[in-house]
Amino acid sequence: MGRMIDGDWRTEADMNEHSDDGAFERDTTSFRHWVGDDVPPAAGRYHLYVSYACPWAHRTLLVRALLGLEDAISVSVVDPVRYDQGWTFDPEKPGCTPDHVFGGTHLRDVYTEADPEYTGRVTVPVLYDTDADTIVNNESEEIMRMLDVAFDDHAARDVDLYPEGYRDEVDRLIEDIYDPINNGVYRAGFADSQRAYDNAVDDLFEALAHYDDVLAEQRYLAGDVLTEADVAMFTTLYRFDEVYHTHFKCNRKRISDYDNLWPYLRELCQLPGVADTLYMEHVKQHYYRSHGHLNPKRLVPTGPNPAFFAPHDRDQLPGGPPAALNQ
Amino acid sequence: MGRMIDGDWRTEADMNEHSDDGAFERDTTSFRHWVGDDVPPAAGRYHLYVSYACPWAHRTLLVRALLGLEDAISVSVVDPVRYDQGWTFDPEKPGCTPDHVFGGTHLRDVYTEADPEYTGRVTVPVLYDTDADTIVNNESEEIMRMLDVAFDDHAARDVDLYPEGYRDEVDRLIEDIYDPINNGVYRAGFADSQRAYDNAVDDLFEALAHYDDVLAEQRYLAGDVLTEADVAMFTTLYRFDEVYHTHFKCNRKRISDYDNLWPYLRELCQLPGVADTLYMEHVKQHYYRSHGHLNPKRLVPTGPNPAFFAPHDRDQLPGGPPAALNQ
Repeated sequence: MGRMIDGDWRTEADMNEHSDDGAFERDTTSFRHWVGDDVPPAAGRYHLYVSYACPWAHRTLLVRALLGLEDAISVSVVDPVRYDQGWTFDPEKPGCTPDHVFGGTHLRDVYTEADPEYTGRVTVPVLYDTDADTIVNNESEEIMRMLDVAFDDHAARDVDLYPEGYRDEVDRLIEDIYDPINNGVYRAGFADSQRAYDNAVDDLFEALAHYDDVLAEQRYLAGDVLTEADVAMFTTLYRFDEVYHTHFKCNRKRISDYDNLWPYLRELCQLPGVADTLYMEHVKQHYYRSHGHLNPKRLVPTGPNPAFFAPHDRDQLPGGPPAALNQ
Repeated sequence: MGRMIDGDWRTEADMNEHSDDGAFERDTTSFRHWVGDDVPPAAGRYHLYVSYACPWAHRTLLVRALLGLEDAISVSVVDPVRYDQGWTFDPEKPGCTPDHVFGGTHLRDVYTEADPEYTGRVTVPVLYDTDADTIVNNESEEIMRMLDVAFDDHAARDVDLYPEGYRDEVDRLIEDIYDPINNGVYRAGFADSQRAYDNAVDDLFEALAHYDDVLAEQRYLAGDVLTEADVAMFTTLYRFDEVYHTHFKCNRKRISDYDNLWPYLRELCQLPGVADTLYMEHVKQHYYRSHGHLNPKRLVPTGPNPAFFAPHDRDQLPGGPPAALNQ
């Protein structure tokens, strides 16, 4: 899918994010500044580039939606289908927007605006600083965190997804689910050897079974309160049955087969604001049509259409969403 | 996967079994003689070439097993993984055998034994006549039928899968399920256009829903008695959750999601003799590793392992298997 080298796009350049034994190894992100530390929070200054398809970008959209940061932080949405020029803009497609900052055609142009010699992958999410004219950060966990903690004064809802008393546990959970679950589905789907695939799905389904047990006893991953750990888990679970199960061959079980993960996923879908971040057609078009190396005919399955908005019974457990989300 | 032209193997020759709109169109088979009409039934004279992977070959293995024709008709089993030389023999692999008739390395050699100028696909099943030294038939429906009706004197069990009074209905059912179900999964998986795929899965799941309804009221497809129609349905259902659901993107539902198809499938798995025809590892290795045009990395999924031998409650319905299978 290409990457930038010294500011130039190289179509063929990053097809080898693999170790010698065929395991997928994700490149690290490049821009790691912090709103709140390096630059001040402000309304109208920062712009978020996302794809509705991407689970990493989805995390940032969710925090923005749950806290009510829509008026403070604007968003551009890329074309979900990514061919050999990387993420592009096609405002004619349903759900897509122009590049609201630059009006360009390629997301890579945003990266070279920030650094004309940029070398690395061109990924979403990107948090762009329109005052300093650079990328603040392109690491989803960090953008999620800074939207959550630095923009309190600009949030329409009093929601804190990184509450005092839970912070160590939230950090531990986000770390704990990353390798087997969030990145685990990619380790399965992008494996270049049967052994790497087998290891990935073993890790994945062991972790899902563990968290299904956890969620039998408690409403959210960290306990009684909704946190960033749930946001991080959610974006993988939401895509699982429609994409990862089939496209990445994570087919031992569906999320809808789990006693607790499935109603937990439904509850999160039904929180105020979340539905506005869901665009399954973008998700499916992205994975099935962008990954010719996995799905050469680029056919998009018609199933299975999980009933994300069917009733859930999670309110039988202690705790619940923040009051601001419960109105 | 290649085909024969005038007795020579052409690796690239049959990659276009498609209509202009991308729909998969299966080639017809070539040898259509009949045991009972053209040649006499006999024990030890005819030899069956199969793959445990192939649903068409599986039909013939099932009739052989249900009627107890093992001593009358011997079997050679090909290597489940088919690369660009077509079906081959690799007796070192678990579940595989040598070519018991010729001792050769390629199934295509059996076709040229029968016809040195053979043109067409090299498929299983093949019913070979070792007296006349030719292929009797390579069409699964016809081999299924002739094993069923012509070999009564050589069957260890008194089982008739094409009983008087049901014959028109059995013929109608076999015809009715072929296009949407048996071949429907291939029409989905081998579609070359989104439209052809969409049409195939619409047909498939409409037909599955219909037969799920039918099986709510009656024990078998034709009514109270087990027939060839069940054999024909079975081999597709057995492969569905492990292969067609993921590999052919037939992922709206699994067979194990259906109220009646699923216990019906389990009952059939548990009939005497049937377990000896089941070799899921061959099934999975075949589809996922042979079809590089669909699954370029040839990774084989580890799931979902349906519980084919879990109890079923089909005996609450009227009818049941033939007495000879009920002991």
